Amino acid sequence: MSTYPIEEKNKVVRGAKRAVYDKSVINEILDAGFLCHISFVMNGQPFMIPTAYARHGEKIYVHGSVKSRTMLEAQKGIPICFCVTHLDALVLARSAFHHSVNYRSAIIYGSARPITKDEDKNDALRLITENFLKGRWDEVRQPNQKELDITSVLEITIESASAKVRTGDPVDDKEDYELDIWAGQLPLQPIYAQPIDDELLKEGVRTSPSVQLAFEGSKR
Amino acid sequence: MSTYPIEEKNKVVRGAKRAVYDKSVINEILDAGFLCHISFVMNGQPFMIPTAYARHGEKIYVHGSVKSRTMLEAQKGIPICFCVTHLDALVLARSAFHHSVNYRSAIIYGSARPITKDEDKNDALRLITENFLKGRWDEVRQPNQKELDITSVLEITIESASAKVRTGDPVDDKEDYELDIWAGQLPLQPIYAQPIDDELLKEGVRTSPSVQLAFEGSKR
Repeated sequence: MSTYPIEEKNKVVRGAKRAVYDKSVINEILDAGFLCHISFVMNGQPFMIPTAYARHGEKIYVHGSVKSRTMLEAQKGIPICFCVTHLDALVLARSAFHHSVNYRSAIIYGSARPITKDEDKNDALRLITENFLKGRWDEVRQPNQKELDITSVLEITIESASAKVRTGDPVDDKEDYELDIWAGQLPLQPIYAQPIDDELLKEGVRTSPSVQLAFEGSKR
Repeated sequence: MSTYPIEEKNKVVRGAKRAVYDKSVINEILDAGFLCHISFVMNGQPFMIPTAYARHGEKIYVHGSVKSRTMLEAQKGIPICFCVTHLDALVLARSAFHHSVNYRSAIIYGSARPITKDEDKNDALRLITENFLKGRWDEVRQPNQKELDITSVLEITIESASAKVRTGDPVDDKEDYELDIWAGQLPLQPIYAQPIDDELLKEGVRTSPSVQLAFEGSKR
C-alpha cells in the first residue's frame, strides 16, 4: 500500500488540491529535514516542542533526556502529532489576498513507545545523528553506557499522515494581471555558512569530511 | 512586567539553564520569523498546522479560510500552543551524545478569538503581510469586501510563554577534548535567492522595493 487512507484525522480540509497522501512523497518530505515539531496533550492542554528526528520505514525516532516532560508523557502511548515543514519560497501576488508560500509539509499522527534495549537505542541514535549530518556518526565518539542510560529514545509509529505541497507562481484574480505590480517567487535557500572551529579545538585538527561535504554542497 | 511568570505550563523542565521568560527576548524571537506551528486539541487528539503570523504587543494574529478546521476550532477559545523556532547552527561535538543545535524557540500558550470587524481584520492582515515581507502591503492591491468575508482572522492573546536559546560551542566531556575529532559549529544561514518573475508578469514591470530589499539584504 503506497498511500495513507484518508480518515477524519488526516483529511486535508482546506487547500485539498494541495493534499498528498502518497507515502513516497511524505517520506521524501520527512527525509529532507532533521527538525520537527511534536505536539501532545496533557490535561487537555496542547504542548509542543521542536526536536531532532530520523525516519526509518514507517517509524520515526526522537530522543531526549529521561527527565524531559515530552519524553515522559509521550512514552505513555498517548496520541502524538508530528510535523515537518520546509519553506521553499515567498509567493508574491498582485493582491494581498493571494500572497502565499511554496512549501512542503508533512503531518504525522501516531503514538510512541520507549526503546529500552541498549542496542536498539544505539541504532536509533545513529539514525538521528546521520539524519542530522550524514557521515558524522562514524567520525565521533559513540555513546557509552552512562549516556545511553540517561537518554530516552522514542519510536513513533506512523498511523496516519498527510502532506501539503505548493509550488509555482502566484494565482491572482484575472483582472489583477493588468496591474503594474511585480509578482513572482522569492526563493528561500537554507545554506550552511563557513564552519566555525570550537575555541578549544585540538591543534592541527581539520574539519571532518561530513562537515566539509555539507558546507561545500550548500554553497551557491 | 517584563517577564512571564513561571507556571506549571510554561516551566522549562529540561535544559532549564537555556530557559528564558523575558518578554523582550520572546518578542524578538517571534518578530524574527513569519512561520509558526500552532497546535490545538480536538476530541483528545492533538492537531498541528504551520501558518503565517504577526505579533503586535501581546497579541498574535493568524489568518486562514473561514472553512479551515484550525480556524473553526481555534476560534472557540480552546487552549492553543504556538511555537516559533529558528535554527542557527549545527553544534558538532566530539561525542555523538553532545551533538546539539544552536537555536532560538518560543512557545506561547493562549487562546484565540475571531476578529469580526472589517477594519480590524484589515489591520491584522496588514500586520501579517508586513511581517511576511516588509513594505509589501503598500505595493499591492489590498483586500476587497469579498476577500475579507472569506478570510478568518484570529487574535491569540499570549497568556503564558517561555523561550529556549542555545548559542556557542559544543560542550564535550573533559577527556574528549584530547580526541583528534573536529568540533565546532556549522552555521545555518537562510537566504533569499534571486527573485523569479511570474510567467504572466506584465511586460516592463520590475521587482518592487520590498522584494529587492529582502533579496539584497540576505546576500552573503
